[in-house]
Amino acid sequence: MNYEAFFTGHLDRLRDEGRYRVFAELERIVGAFPRARFHREGGPAKDVTVWCSNDYLAMGQHPVVLDAMQSAIGAQGSGAGGTRNISGTNTFHTALEQELAALHRKDAALIFTSGYVANETTLQTLGALLPGCELYSDAFNHASMIAGIRHSGAVRKIFRHNDLHHLEELLAAADPSTPKIVAFESVYSMDGDVAPIGDICDLAHRYGALTYLDEVHAVGMYGDRGAGVAERDDVLDKVDIVQGTLAKAFGVVGGYIASSAATVDFIRSCGSGFIFTTSLPPAIAAAAAASIRYVSSHPELRVRHQERAATLKRRLAAAGLPVMPSATHIVPVSVGDATLCKQASDLLMDRHDIYVQPINYPTVPRGTERLRLTPTPLHTDEHMAYLVSALQDVWQTLGLGRRAAAE
Amino acid sequence: MNYEAFFTGHLDRLRDEGRYRVFAELERIVGAFPRARFHREGGPAKDVTVWCSNDYLAMGQHPVVLDAMQSAIGAQGSGAGGTRNISGTNTFHTALEQELAALHRKDAALIFTSGYVANETTLQTLGALLPGCELYSDAFNHASMIAGIRHSGAVRKIFRHNDLHHLEELLAAADPSTPKIVAFESVYSMDGDVAPIGDICDLAHRYGALTYLDEVHAVGMYGDRGAGVAERDDVLDKVDIVQGTLAKAFGVVGGYIASSAATVDFIRSCGSGFIFTTSLPPAIAAAAAASIRYVSSHPELRVRHQERAATLKRRLAAAGLPVMPSATHIVPVSVGDATLCKQASDLLMDRHDIYVQPINYPTVPRGTERLRLTPTPLHTDEHMAYLVSALQDVWQTLGLGRRAAAE
Ligand SMILES: Cc1ncc(COP(=O)(O)O)c(C=O)c1O
Ligand SMILES: Cc1ncc(COP(=O)(O)O)c(C=O)c1O
Repeated sequence: MNYEAFFTGHLDRLRDEGRYRVFAELERIVGAFPRARFHREGGPAKDVTVWCSNDYLAMGQHPVVLDAMQSAIGAQGSGAGGTRNISGTNTFHTALEQELAALHRKDAALIFTSGYVANETTLQTLGALLPGCELYSDAFNHASMIAGIRHSGAVRKIFRHNDLHHLEELLAAADPSTPKIVAFESVYSMDGDVAPIGDICDLAHRYGALTYLDEVHAVGMYGDRGAGVAERDDVLDKVDIVQGTLAKAFGVVGGYIASSAATVDFIRSCGSGFIFTTSLPPAIAAAAAASIRYVSSHPELRVRHQERAATLKRRLAAAGLPVMPSATHIVPVSVGDATLCKQASDLLMDRHDIYVQPINYPTVPRGTERLRLTPTPLHTDEHMAYLVSALQDVWQTLGLGRRAAAE
Repeated sequence: MNYEAFFTGHLDRLRDEGRYRVFAELERIVGAFPRARFHREGGPAKDVTVWCSNDYLAMGQHPVVLDAMQSAIGAQGSGAGGTRNISGTNTFHTALEQELAALHRKDAALIFTSGYVANETTLQTLGALLPGCELYSDAFNHASMIAGIRHSGAVRKIFRHNDLHHLEELLAAADPSTPKIVAFESVYSMDGDVAPIGDICDLAHRYGALTYLDEVHAVGMYGDRGAGVAERDDVLDKVDIVQGTLAKAFGVVGGYIASSAATVDFIRSCGSGFIFTTSLPPAIAAAAAASIRYVSSHPELRVRHQERAATLKRRLAAAGLPVMPSATHIVPVSVGDATLCKQASDLLMDRHDIYVQPINYPTVPRGTERLRLTPTPLHTDEHMAYLVSALQDVWQTLGLGRRAAAE
C-alpha cells in the first residue's frame, strides 16, 4: 500500500469539503487579554482581538496563578519525574485533589493529564470492569466521553439530547439488575444549552444507575463557589461522579473527577490512562489550585461574565445577526456551511483583526457550522461594538443569512 | 447493583494480592536532586534519596529549563486557552514541533498532552482509518500502545518480544496488499533491553509495513544528539513514525510523534485525542524546547549517565544482589513476589531513607516483581555505596534470593 498517497488523498478530501483545519498561531500577551499577536506564515505578525478562547475568565494571565506557577517551578522544578505510582506523586497533587474534592463537596478527587483523559479513562474503566455494564450517553456528548464509552466495550445506549422521556424509555427496557451509568454534560459547549441535571439524576437513580456529569464548560463559572451548574441548581449530591477541566475557566491544564472515596480509589487503581503516564508537573497543580481558590472566592467574576454574555447576545440580535439560542456564556452565531464559515472567519481576521475560529464538522453536525463567540469579563463594550460592526460587514460581503439556523 | 460494595471489594482483592498501590508523596527540591522530601500521613516529613525517578537526566531542575518555563509564563501566561484548533495554537508549540522534527530528522512533528496520548491517538487513528489495517505489536509493548491498538478495532497480531522470526512468520502469512504497521519500543522500560531497530524495520518494509517506534525511554539519552537508539544505531530514516515523551529525559511533560509531513498532517487532522483537548501550556512547550536544545548539545550528559548505570550494575553484582541483565540505564533488581517487593521498598524507605517504588503486576508480569533503579548523572558514588549496603540489609532481613530471576 502507498501510505503517503493514502494520507495525501484523505487530506485533499478534507480540503475539498472545506474542513481542512488551519491552526491560527497566537502569541499570548500577559496583561493584554483578549488581545494577542497573530503570526502568519510569510507575513508580519499583527495584533488581534481573540473572541474564541476557552480561557473563559482570563485566569490564564492572572497574577495569582502565574505567581503560584512560577514559584512552584523555582521550588520543585519543571516536571513530576514519574507516573503517579513511580516517584510522580507530589505535595501539590495531593493538595489540588483535596481542593477539588472540597469544591464539589465529594470525599475525594483524582487528577488526570487532561479533561479528555479524565473522561476517557473513567468511563472506559467503569464500563469495562462493572460486569455487564450499560452506558447511557447523551447524543451530544463530547468526543472524550464517546471515546471512553466505546473503548470500554460496554453496551452503549444513546438517548436523544437532554430528552428525559427517551432516557426513561431506554432505562425502563433494561434489566434492572445490570450496572448502569448515565453520562452527560452540564453545559454543552457548542450550543451553550444546559442539562436538567437534577431531573436526569433522579431518573437515573430510580433505575439504579450511577450518574456521571461532565462540567468542563461550567466549573469556575456557575454556582456560588464556581463548582458548576450542579452547585447552581443545588444538586451536587445527586451527581455520583463529576468530571471537570483545569484548562478552561481555571486557565491552566489538566482534568479531574470527584466522587466517593471508593469510586476514586477504584479509578486510581485500575484506570490505564491514569496509571501509565507521567503525572502533571507540580507547578501546574500549584497554579490550578491557586486559580480554583481565587475563582471560588470571587463570585463577582461570574456575575460580570454572565453580564458580558447577555450583553453580547442582545447586541448581536439587535444588529440582526443570527445569534443562536444559548442559556449560557457561550454565544454561537449560525453560518450553516463549512466553506462560508471558514471564509467568514478569514475575513474577520484579514479585514478586522478579529480572531474567531470556524466551527465545522466533526465538532458540530454538518449544516450547523458556526462562529462560536466566548465573551469574557475582559471583553469591553468597545470590543463588542467593534465585533458587531465587523460581523455585519462580513455578513454583507458573503451574503450570509440573518436568521439563526436553530430558529 | 451496590456500586460502593463492588468498588470496595475490588480494592480489597488488590490489597490481598499485595498489589494495592500506595503513592509516595514527594516534595521535589530544586538543586537537591536526587534528594527529595517524603511526606507521610500522620508523621513528620523526612529527606530521602530517590532511586526510581524517570527524570533521567535531572533536567527537571536544570536552570535552563526552569528559566525558559518561568519567562514564558511571564510573557504568555499559564495555559493555552483552547484546543489546538480553537485559539490554542501558540508560537511555542510551533517552535517545539520544529525542534522535534529536526531532532529526529523528519519533515514534521506533532505534540500531544502526553506520551500516552501520542501513542494511543496515533495508533488508534492509523488502525481505524487505514482500510483493513493490521497492527503487529511487540508482546512487551507499553499500555498506551496497546490501548491505541485495541481501540482502533484493527486486526492485532502480537509477536514475541524482539523476535524477528516470529514477526516474519506473521507478516509472511498475511495478505501482502493490506496496510500494516509494526509497532515496538527501542528501550523497554521495565527490563532495560533494546530492540534491533534496523532489523525490525528492514523486515517490516520488506512486507510493506509502516514502522512505528516508541523511544520514550531513549530520547535525550541515546545517539549523538540524543535523538534515541535509532540515532545511535544510525537507522533514523528506517523509522517511519517515531514517538517520544517530553516528560522523562527532557524533564517536563507532554508527548509527540515525528514523521513525514503527510503522516503528521493526517494525525493532526483526524486524531480524536489530539483534536478534542486543550493544548499544552505555552510555557511547557518553551521549557521542553529549551531542554531538548540543551540535552542535544551536551553529549557529556549521556556519557556520564551510561557510566553511572554501568557502575551501579557492577556494584550490585559485586554485592551478590540479583541485578537483572539490562543493556541500558535501567537497572532492575529481581524480587519475584508482590508482597516481598512492597516490603523491600517499605524497609528501604523506613530504615534507610531510600525511595524505590515496588514494580508489581500489571506493570510487569506476575512472578517478575522487582525494584527498578534509575541512576542519573547526579547519583554519586556515595549514593551508590549507601544504596548497595541498604539493599544488602533488606535482602538479609527479608531472606530474599541472591540470583536474578532472569538468570
Ligand atoms: C465537554 C468537554 N469535555 C471534555 C473536554 C476535554 O477537556 P480538556 O481540554 O481538559 O482535555 C472538552 C474540551 O476540550 C469538552 O468540551
Ligand atoms: C514505553 C512508554 N511509552 C509511553 C509512555 C507514556 O509517556 P508519558 O509519560 O509521556 O505519558 C510510557 C510511560 O510513561 C512508557 O513507558
